[in-house]
Order: sequence, then structure tokens, then C-alpha cells
Amino acid sequence: MRQVAILGIGQTKIDEHWERSLRDLASEAILAALEDSGRQWVQGLFVGNMLSGMIDDQNNLGNLLADWSGLKMAEAVKVEAACGSGAAAFRLALMAVASGEMDSALAVGIEKMTDRHPHEVTAALATAADADYEGEQGVSFVGLNALIMQRYMVEYGWKHADFAPFSINAHANAMHNPWARLHTRITLEKFEKADMVASPINLLDASPIGDGAAALLLVPAEALTGPNKIVVAASASATDTLAIHDRPDTLFLSAAHRSSRTAYHQAGLEPKDIDLFELHDAFSIMSALSLEACGFAERGQGPRPALDGEISPTGRIPICTRGGLKARGHPVGATGAYQLVEVVQQLRGQCSETQVPEASIGMAQNIGGSGATILTHILRKTD
Amino acid sequence: MRQVAILGIGQTKIDEHWERSLRDLASEAILAALEDSGRQWVQGLFVGNMLSGMIDDQNNLGNLLADWSGLKMAEAVKVEAACGSGAAAFRLALMAVASGEMDSALAVGIEKMTDRHPHEVTAALATAADADYEGEQGVSFVGLNALIMQRYMVEYGWKHADFAPFSINAHANAMHNPWARLHTRITLEKFEKADMVASPINLLDASPIGDGAAALLLVPAEALTGPNKIVVAASASATDTLAIHDRPDTLFLSAAHRSSRTAYHQAGLEPKDIDLFELHDAFSIMSALSLEACGFAERGQGPRPALDGEISPTGRIPICTRGGLKARGHPVGATGAYQLVEVVQQLRGQCSETQVPEASIGMAQNIGGSGATILTHILRKTD
Repeated sequence: MRQVAILGIGQTKIDEHWERSLRDLASEAILAALEDSGRQWVQGLFVGNMLSGMIDDQNNLGNLLADWSGLKMAEAVKVEAACGSGAAAFRLALMAVASGEMDSALAVGIEKMTDRHPHEVTAALATAADADYEGEQGVSFVGLNALIMQRYMVEYGWKHADFAPFSINAHANAMHNPWARLHTRITLEKFEKADMVASPINLLDASPIGDGAAALLLVPAEALTGPNKIVVAASASATDTLAIHDRPDTLFLSAAHRSSRTAYHQAGLEPKDIDLFELHDAFSIMSALSLEACGFAERGQGPRPALDGEISPTGRIPICTRGGLKARGHPVGATGAYQLVEVVQQLRGQCSETQVPEASIGMAQNIGGSGATILTHILRKTD
Repeated sequence: MRQVAILGIGQTKIDEHWERSLRDLASEAILAALEDSGRQWVQGLFVGNMLSGMIDDQNNLGNLLADWSGLKMAEAVKVEAACGSGAAAFRLALMAVASGEMDSALAVGIEKMTDRHPHEVTAALATAADADYEGEQGVSFVGLNALIMQRYMVEYGWKHADFAPFSINAHANAMHNPWARLHTRITLEKFEKADMVASPINLLDASPIGDGAAALLLVPAEALTGPNKIVVAASASATDTLAIHDRPDTLFLSAAHRSSRTAYHQAGLEPKDIDLFELHDAFSIMSALSLEACGFAERGQGPRPALDGEISPTGRIPICTRGGLKARGHPVGATGAYQLVEVVQQLRGQCSETQVPEASIGMAQNIGGSGATILTHILRKTD
């Protein structure tokens, strides 16, 4: 396989874009990535999206976006892996270029989900879980994560307030990200007093949905000259059981462990080499479990790096440097693409107040389902 | 890129499987392909499906099926390109193995769509078209194809009965395919008297939907020894505009032309070298247009090969040798996988009464939308 570089990126602000359509948002991100790359066309378009059929009455989304963005005759598909769809689309675009089948490919994550009543959106999101054995019982997606968080707190003796630093860090970082959905600082007091969603998960443990799109344009690294190329050093994906009750240990993200270990091996790196980690903080408990599974905290000690001040942009392992899912927002099928765009911004040194000093190796991890499908990518800036 | 071989295949009968679930049908095809291959695990599962979110309340389908089929920890995604989803999943599995990223991958097409009221299914299928500019106007998918057929008949002077040989051939061939949905012979008289759906398309111009799954297991060709390997000689995909009113010529399948020409070039072949062609006869008009775009008939002369008796298993260009979409059935996201499985059966010589004599090169073409996304694959039996 040949090495692949990220030539350009694009993203929209995440918001409730009631006045804009699915195709409009996606093509803004696509055209921005093309412009950033100095290109006008690509051979393949890989669209990460979860809910366009259910929410927007639109399938064949790859075709629609190739057409609407002016990528005439380009190959196009939609890729779905629930909230992991964005990184899944990126990984398939990567393989297409790495294989030599394409000399250029664009991965775009897009979700337009705020036009419907929240009850409909909650029901649609529940399709990320096992419809027959979880959804059929009436358990929502946040409900499943609440079960995990409750068990974790009991098992390891943490209290709810111990998860506050994750959300406080995410909100603080999002203040400096113009594309983020939320621009509000929060405090421990606010965190503890937030409205309950599904105990113990309250509004400030949970990420907000939103409308948004993010895109990355991939080319063979050999096509670029000079230093400071952003290359894909590793790409890996793994699955766990879809239903959480089928797992021998519901408090360990085995798919995160497997995909991160595969990625470290591919890149010849260890956790200590990672300068920043855009993890999938759909709920604060997921930040803790992700840090453990990927080698940044001991088992049962996930909240520790946050409590010790190690997750800020200047800490040992900066996470959610642009706001994370919690404050940048979580337009589900687009999130994985936002994470990768943000890692590129860090490696390019474009992150102003939340810039990680001398960042040259960044990791992004995107999760579909309750820890079910987990994709890990490592990007590196070349000398 | 390394050459890829198809090691095993599996399929379910297409039917109204009211007593069986989405996961049940898909895993039957997956397990059959594993058994046919002598394998117990693959690195990646690529699921082609269009409607699981809308019809079955189930997303994250790649994960579900990897889990349910016992492919623990395997990478898994769902791929959607409307009715072209099956071949799209196959093409991505192919690139994963060709790139060296995986040493084994399984592509499965699955659709479970007969549990809902036909009105709901018709609305769901309309999401393959442009929701804002076609679906919003109330035009159904068959309605769009009726507009194309009507225009074609006016433009080139064909009458409705001229399309009968396509459906008669498909039904005759399906009589010998135990996995086909329909086992009924039809005549010209029956064809002309069938109930109207959307003029000029009647029930015997249109393919029936259904529930079913088909799977193919891919490995590097170099991993196999001996003659008679089934290898992928070409794989190509292209898009046209999604909405048919945006096309300069609605009677020419430009994406079929482009993807077939790319495929011929890759394989070093011409149309005359193709021993059989599993084309996408969702409606009889599509058979005519596909034959034209792929070089088997002159422009405007698509019905000619059928009228001249050239499309039977012993004819110049055998099509729909196992019944095609018309009689084998059209479980939309699974259809592309069925076509490829059937080409493999032909190259293996497993097609009894509809066996194409000395078949060694077979082509399959899968269409998503009204000629919008078109994938062409050529398989070849090695000496």
C-alpha cells in the first residue's frame, strides 16, 4: 500500500441549521476542502452519514452529493456505521487511494438532524443499538450509556462530580473554535446542577446533536513535495458485540483497545508518543473508558487524567482540543470527520488558544453504537 | 494492487420471509459463503443495504451482522448506494483486499422489506431519487422509469410488446434457479395483459421486491493454487446526475457507459468477449438502455437483441441467466450481490438448464437510482 496524505480540509459550523438543507451543508464542506486543496474534482466521494434516510427522506446520498457539488461522474457511496460513520467513510477513502485504485478521494461526514421533533431523533438514534434486543425494550441510546456509567461508578468508587473536568475542558476549548456548536464556559457547580437526562447522565455529561458537515481530501503522499505533509500513519477498525449485555465486561471498550493497538503497531508508536487525542466523548463516561482502553489511564482510573489536569491543550494527553463532541457538537455521522479535520488543524498549527505545542502526531477515535464499532486513526506531520 | 479472487459464495432464496429477521437472512448467506470457502472468519465485513434504518429500525448493520454471524472483532461497515448497494459493498471489499489492508473480506447484500405495507415500501424506495426535486413532487420510483420508457418508445418508435422478450427470458431462466422468487413462465399474451403500474410500465415490466441476502468471500488470488480460480478482472463505478431531469439525454445511461468502458479497459476486453451479462433489469426499459450503454446494441436499438433471440443462455449475449431482477427478484440492497453470485455460479458451471456453454468471462452491472449510480464488475475464470 502506498502512503496517503491529507491535502485539504473543510467544515461547517455545527448548529441548528433550519434554513439550510442536507445537500447545502455537505457541499459547503466539500467545496471548502476542494478549495483548501487547490483541486476541482476527485475520483471518489465517500459520504459518512447515519440518518439521511430516516430523517431527511434521502438515500443514495453519495450520488446526490457528488452531483450537487459538481463532482460529475465521480464514483460515490454512502457509508454507515452509526456515530462512527464519519471515520468509516475516511477509512474507505483511504483504502481506495492506498490501493492505487484512485489518485484522489474525498471523505465527507454529514448529518442534518434538527428539523425533526426530538422524540423522532431519539428514536432514530436508538437504531444504532440492537433493534430486536435493546431498542425493542424501549431503552434509548443515552439510557444504555447511563447503565454503563452507573455500573462504572459503583464498581470503581467514583462520584458523578469526578467526571466534571471532562466537560469543563471540552467547553473551555470550544470557546476558541468558531465551528463549535456551544460557546459557553461551564463550572463544577453548573455541571452538578444540570438537568438529569438518564441518571447518572445529566445534560452536561451528554453531547448535543446538531447539523454539520466536515470533509477531508486524500491523495497519495508521493504526489506532494516538501516538508510538513500531513500523512495517515495508521488506520484501524474493530467491532465488539452490538448489544452491551452480550459483553463479558461492559466497562472495557475492547474494540477501542483492539483498534488502537493495531494503529500503534502500524505507526510504530506507543501511547506516550501521541501529542493529542480527539476521542469520542458522546458522554463523559466514554471519555474515561476511551482513555483506559487506549493506554492513557489504568483500568478503572479513567477520570484520573482529567482530575489531574492532564487533558488540557498543554497537558500530558490533550483531548477534545476543539471542544469534542460535548461542546463542538455531535452531528452523528459527521463527527468522525470533524475529529480528523481538527487533528489536521492541530498538526498545521491553526488552533490559536488551544493549540497543542509542537503537535506532530495526533490520534482520532470515532465510535458507532455503545462502544460497538470503533475506528482509530493516527495522523503525523512529516519533517 | 494485487489481484483478488472469489473463494466462496452464499445466498438465500428470495421470498416474503415474514417469519425470519434481517439478521437471520443475512447470516444464512454469510455462513453459507464461509462454509463454501472453508473459512471461519474474515477480517472485514462489507454490508450492502439500502433500507434497514427506514424499514427495520436497525442501523449499525455492519456491526450487527459481524456480531450475529460470529465474526468477532472483525471490522464492519454498511454501504449504501440505493439499489446499487450490493455491488458497492463488493467493490469496497475488493479494494480492502486489493490494497493489502485485509487478507480476507466478505461482501453481503441484504434487504428485508416485505414486512411493511407496500405504501411504506414505495415511499422508502422513492428515497433513491432526489428527495427535494423528485420525491417532493410525489413521483414514485416506478413513475420515473415510466417517464423514461414512454419517451424511449416515442423517440425510437418501439411498442410495448417489443419489450416482452426481456421478461419472458427472465421468467424462463428463473424456472431453473431454486433461489429465485418467481417460478412462473410468462407469454407475450400475459405480458400484454398484465395490470398497469405506471403507464407504460405494467406488472410484467417491473421486478418484484423481496427479502433476501447474498454473500461473496474475497481473498488475494495469490493465496490460491491451481486452475479455475474466479478472479475479479475489473471493477468500476460512476455516477450520473441523481435527478433525471438534469440530464442532457435521459435515454442514455452515461454512468453505465463510463463504468463499463473503464471495466473493459481494466480487463483488456471488448463487449464481444463477454460470455454473459447480469444486467440490472429493474424495469424492462433498463435492460434495453443497459445493452446500449455497454456496447451490446446500437443507440435506440436496445430491444433488438431480445427480439432476435440473442439474450438466452445460448445466445450472443446471455442476460438474466438466473432470472434477473424480474424473476429472481429484487431485494434492493442485496441485488448487486446476487448478480455477482450468479456470475460465479456460471463460471463454475453450476447453472444446469441455463448454463452458458463454456462461460469463462462474466459481467455484472448494478444500478442505484434511475441510472444514477452504476457499478460494473467483470469476473474471469483463470486457466
